[in-house]
Amino acid sequence: LTSRSLFTPIFVPEAVQDAVAGAAWVRAMLDVEAALAAAEAAEGVIPAAVAEAIAAARPDVGELGVAARAAGNPVVPLVDALREAVGGDAARFVHYGATSQDVLDSAAMLVARRALEPVLAELDAVVEECARLAREHRDTLMAGRTLLQQAVPVTFGLKAAGWLAGVAGARARLRALREALPAQLGGAAGTLASLGDRGPAVLAAFARELGLAEPALPWHGARGPVAELGAALAVAAGAVEKVALDVVLLAQTEVGEVAEASGDGRGGSSAMPHKRNPVGAVRARAAARTVRGAAGVLLEAMAAEHERAAGAWHSEWTALSDALAYTGGAAWSLREGLSGLEVDTARMRANLDLGESDEAREPAAHLGAASEFIDRALRLA
Amino acid sequence: LTSRSLFTPIFVPEAVQDAVAGAAWVRAMLDVEAALAAAEAAEGVIPAAVAEAIAAARPDVGELGVAARAAGNPVVPLVDALREAVGGDAARFVHYGATSQDVLDSAAMLVARRALEPVLAELDAVVEECARLAREHRDTLMAGRTLLQQAVPVTFGLKAAGWLAGVAGARARLRALREALPAQLGGAAGTLASLGDRGPAVLAAFARELGLAEPALPWHGARGPVAELGAALAVAAGAVEKVALDVVLLAQTEVGEVAEASGDGRGGSSAMPHKRNPVGAVRARAAARTVRGAAGVLLEAMAAEHERAAGAWHSEWTALSDALAYTGGAAWSLREGLSGLEVDTARMRANLDLGESDEAREPAAHLGAASEFIDRALRLA
Amino acid sequence: LTSRSLFTPIFVPEAVQDAVAGAAWVRAMLDVEAALAAAEAAEGVIPAAVAEAIAAARPDVGELGVAARAAGNPVVPLVDALREAVGGDAARFVHYGATSQDVLDSAAMLVARRALEPVLAELDAVVEECARLAREHRDTLMAGRTLLQQAVPVTFGLKAAGWLAGVAGARARLRALREALPAQLGGAAGTLASLGDRGPAVLAAFARELGLAEPALPWHGARGPVAELGAALAVAAGAVEKVALDVVLLAQTEVGEVAEASGDGRGGSSAMPHKRNPVGAVRARAAARTVRGAAGVLLEAMAAEHERAAGAWHSEWTALSDALAYTGGAAWSLREGLSGLEVDTARMRANLDLGESDEAREPAAHLGAASEFIDRALRLA
Amino acid sequence: LTSRSLFTPIFVPEAVQDAVAGAAWVRAMLDVEAALAAAEAAEGVIPAAVAEAIAAARPDVGELGVAARAAGNPVVPLVDALREAVGGDAARFVHYGATSQDVLDSAAMLVARRALEPVLAELDAVVEECARLAREHRDTLMAGRTLLQQAVPVTFGLKAAGWLAGVAGARARLRALREALPAQLGGAAGTLASLGDRGPAVLAAFARELGLAEPALPWHGARGPVAELGAALAVAAGAVEKVALDVVLLAQTEVGEVAEASGDGRGGSSAMPHKRNPVGAVRARAAARTVRGAAGVLLEAMAAEHERAAGAWHSEWTALSDALAYTGGAAWSLREGLSGLEVDTARMRANLDLGESDEAREPAAHLGAASEFIDRALRLA
Repeated sequence: LTSRSLFTPIFVPEAVQDAVAGAAWVRAMLDVEAALAAAEAAEGVIPAAVAEAIAAARPDVGELGVAARAAGNPVVPLVDALREAVGGDAARFVHYGATSQDVLDSAAMLVARRALEPVLAELDAVVEECARLAREHRDTLMAGRTLLQQAVPVTFGLKAAGWLAGVAGARARLRALREALPAQLGGAAGTLASLGDRGPAVLAAFARELGLAEPALPWHGARGPVAELGAALAVAAGAVEKVALDVVLLAQTEVGEVAEASGDGRGGSSAMPHKRNPVGAVRARAAARTVRGAAGVLLEAMAAEHERAAGAWHSEWTALSDALAYTGGAAWSLREGLSGLEVDTARMRANLDLGESDEAREPAAHLGAASEFIDRALRLA
Repeated sequence: LTSRSLFTPIFVPEAVQDAVAGAAWVRAMLDVEAALAAAEAAEGVIPAAVAEAIAAARPDVGELGVAARAAGNPVVPLVDALREAVGGDAARFVHYGATSQDVLDSAAMLVARRALEPVLAELDAVVEECARLAREHRDTLMAGRTLLQQAVPVTFGLKAAGWLAGVAGARARLRALREALPAQLGGAAGTLASLGDRGPAVLAAFARELGLAEPALPWHGARGPVAELGAALAVAAGAVEKVALDVVLLAQTEVGEVAEASGDGRGGSSAMPHKRNPVGAVRARAAARTVRGAAGVLLEAMAAEHERAAGAWHSEWTALSDALAYTGGAAWSLREGLSGLEVDTARMRANLDLGESDEAREPAAHLGAASEFIDRALRLA
Repeated sequence: LTSRSLFTPIFVPEAVQDAVAGAAWVRAMLDVEAALAAAEAAEGVIPAAVAEAIAAARPDVGELGVAARAAGNPVVPLVDALREAVGGDAARFVHYGATSQDVLDSAAMLVARRALEPVLAELDAVVEECARLAREHRDTLMAGRTLLQQAVPVTFGLKAAGWLAGVAGARARLRALREALPAQLGGAAGTLASLGDRGPAVLAAFARELGLAEPALPWHGARGPVAELGAALAVAAGAVEKVALDVVLLAQTEVGEVAEASGDGRGGSSAMPHKRNPVGAVRARAAARTVRGAAGVLLEAMAAEHERAAGAWHSEWTALSDALAYTGGAAWSLREGLSGLEVDTARMRANLDLGESDEAREPAAHLGAASEFIDRALRLA
Repeated sequence: LTSRSLFTPIFVPEAVQDAVAGAAWVRAMLDVEAALAAAEAAEGVIPAAVAEAIAAARPDVGELGVAARAAGNPVVPLVDALREAVGGDAARFVHYGATSQDVLDSAAMLVARRALEPVLAELDAVVEECARLAREHRDTLMAGRTLLQQAVPVTFGLKAAGWLAGVAGARARLRALREALPAQLGGAAGTLASLGDRGPAVLAAFARELGLAEPALPWHGARGPVAELGAALAVAAGAVEKVALDVVLLAQTEVGEVAEASGDGRGGSSAMPHKRNPVGAVRARAAARTVRGAAGVLLEAMAAEHERAAGAWHSEWTALSDALAYTGGAAWSLREGLSGLEVDTARMRANLDLGESDEAREPAAHLGAASEFIDRALRLA
């Protein structure tokens, strides 16, 4: 039904789509409610049997999005459904001491943690492809190009090493953030008042249950965790986009130094079946731009009013989903392009001769530290 | 499956969602193929019977998004499906002389034209609500506020008139752009070469068939039509967002001058059932932010390489869908908030007394041209 | 002193820099105060002699920026300086009935109106260069390129015609907006209360004095005029950027179809003096990106609180200045690149042969409507 | 002359303006040339006497911005001036083995490193003010507010603790990045070819000379270091903006819980001298928006062509300067607002009574873990 059903699959692989899909968010919200109950049971706030009932409940959430309109977020109808599924006296312990934002923010971090697994795997695969190219083409001479004009010679291995370093740097930041994604639990206004003096203990247990970091204090109104993640995703997508841009440029008809794999209509065109478009790189560039748009929304959302923002918070949910999905999609698309990349080393050498410089005439003598730099980059892989 | 299934319904009404959904895009692409065939038949380029067959075909498009990965756009598999549905000799006249971008760009303009109907209807409804408030509260005194500090008195009618003027101005631009949305037809590289000397005539007929404007020349690489639409949607969403922000501020517990309608859980909270959140305005603000993110993607996409961009073009599809959907959603959400708005005129008067200025003591004598300004704004409704 | 002193001259010509410089804003603010006094004198609100004194005053504004910190805007210290310069009894009629935002918004529109003159002149020059290229190269065959792969043949004239149409379209919008830039006059909260029943008449006279449009009502909190201008500048910069991107791509060593003029170190490099970089196009691309960043700030500023925003308004001043300056700078940089552009028609023909398609072998027979499209575009010049 | 001369001082303190001013960039570029020469002398690439001459040279750089137009960057004319100042045979060793981007990127990192000192000092001061408020108001009851509706009670200390944690988190990232800012040295295309086998050793010495990190390999085309810094500045500005937004909201006439210090016209208005605007917070909000616009430019610039981008790179210089300056300015403005903040604890208590909830009647019993959370936040200060 939504606008994304047609286009998202072009840019995002199934595993990544699934990881941020509505069902994944619902699953995460239910996991959060279960973790809350478990933590509260462990701290003696609610009966242990209730926590088990909540964990075992399989509520029928139905059309949660439509039901969420009245409250402006899906937690309210979700809790209703969960209470109904749990039933009886236990129902009143569902969502005990929590507020909607506790559940949705913790779920967001859980979705992010889970989605980062395939996203990071795609980035790993890109790094691997870059490392392979760097190793295989350590001595493959080609033109260095500045402002798109030929400069002095480089090697394709050095170029791939630069790609590698860029993506690996962004990946390192995402990995670090993934370990720091904080749980959210503050109750109605961040005091955990309903939990009396057991608030901090429940918070600690809750974070442990979810495998998320324990925050110093609730961050309902301090959106650093979301904004930093959005920014890191935009940087990762940008690092991927740089590679994709280079691939598109090297694949130009007049340059012809690389070509993405063809076959099965890949890279074809509706008007010109003979064409061989660098379709992986093209899709990666498009996906990276989508991430940048979403990251802008997340950065803007930092200006949050008081203990819960009236709109900025609500704008995070699709933006974060998109930032995760399309970063994974950018990496996946690029990886597809790189994995079958045909490298025309003869063409690289021939293009180099266009430059007519001294270096072009005797390029190997002019490579300086290229090989050393490749080694250094490979250590980042 | 996609990330939007859970959250989009909170912010976007069904009619607007449907207007930009995958099915709407597929419908539009098929309409474009039919219009192309009809135009070509009218100009004697292809047999009339073929055009009828194309218009009558009901291709099974299946999982178009996944099939679209190989070529990077959904037109290639769509044309395959359409050719199969048409069958026989006629199949080779399907998509005759066109390129993928002709179909997708024309479909985008068609989707925009169709989606702007409910979007403009929602903006009309917002304008109507503002006009109603302006009329009803022409003499309702309240504090004017600059930098969120009370300044001199205004009327609530004047405030609503300012809302009206902002939204009506943005609406006027969208209306004008809607009439100017151009068809796209250029063939493989913008020359309409396959149509020989009948290219311009086919282009004119094609645009007429679709009810779109005839462009001076193909705009495969000149993305003004898309970027201008994106910018106009961001401006419209921004005009809505301004109203929503004012509503949120007026509804603050300590201000209490307006309240959105409650009932059926509307504006409720999972932790505090007694709360009465301005949920329409809150959703409107979130939706407007999403539009802004999408508009940024569309503006960036103007830098398009040569006769078709390698990635920028591909980033437009979801961004345009989002910009349309969430502009409609922002207006719809706000309208819901305004339509049941409870205005506490006594509280407005009481708050005015907080200001302790001369004007606050005798406010009606200090309204100047407010009523005249209201009349002027109402003429924009 | 500011961060811009080193870099701005690279991207923006003196005439455009001057048009948005601090001095231009101060001049505009003083013009606004004079126009206000003149309008009020004409309507009998203040003595005519006072208006003359205000118009004749040459206040020493000194370090207005630093003085503006206390109030958060430069109008407060400017009015102080103006009152001192006018002196005597007349001083109390300075700024009569107006608020800071009246002066700053009207000055912004005046600065925009004045700056759009050189900006539009630069866009005119770009259009002229495109028209010249379209005429001169009507029959110059070259490869059409989609996704940066050679497609069917086009002419360089058609490509230039597409550039022309894109820039001319954006220019048309800027021209229309320039005529619609509204004066701002509302007094403390938009009621013109201090002017009693003469408010609307003073507003009309004030707008006439300034050569600005008369708004339906004050727009202190309805930022459409600024946001629409920002968006239109981003679209114009984007249209310029598209041309610059194509120039950079055509100038690649391996493509070699165009080159910007060299001489006097133009396009040189610190490491490789023999290089011939397309420096005009490069600078244009950078400038366009700066516009886009500024336009984002302006679009975000639409969400303005009540009768004057607490921060959003203040973010407009430099963003609007940048959007104007760098749009002019983008056009100026590109124009410089286009005006001396060397077009290698033999190379265009030779590159076409790389395509190996039927069309490449007999390209002239495959140009379809190209010439007709060129004629249409030239009518937009 | 530039557009910033009037407005920048309102938002950015002198020390921060100076740190990113044209003169600071020129100083940094000369420092880079001197460090390069020193490193090369240490490795025996150039004579030691030459390095001393370069370090001692005081070139007359004149109107570098205008001179930079021909090459598109200021390094070319700067190197010319430096060679002239050094004179004689030594001149040819100036800039030896380097390219413009080596100098400008290293200078950018040096400017960033130096500017981050006052920027971080301003952030430290904000953290200090928040810590002071958190300590002083540990037991000051006030309303928690979600969606701008009163929720359950909090303390002002807890609110300030949340501010503290947000700013401290962003500060930690900036501190870490500051230590990781890499030198840039790759020569014409990233191979350091001119330095033969001494390239890596020179690079290491060069980085040491500058006090910058040694990169694994040149990053001419891998813009992570700039984009990550831009993103971190946007996050820091966003954390500041959140506090500023809360201050503006608390300072509303109808809320009246805090007021910024007045006196000497601070917070005044041209129309209403009695007003007391939260001008520090207002300026901080505006500055933060400017940072966000600049950060968008920097993120977009990651898509860099090959070994040096044709425009994206050039867009970084003013964007980075702005991002640094306005982050510092946002913190400085907010700090000014916080340092004299008058906190009306009686009003906080009175407003709490508006809520009419059970919690409002006996708020102290409902504060849960607030005090514990404050302690935790204070440990981040």
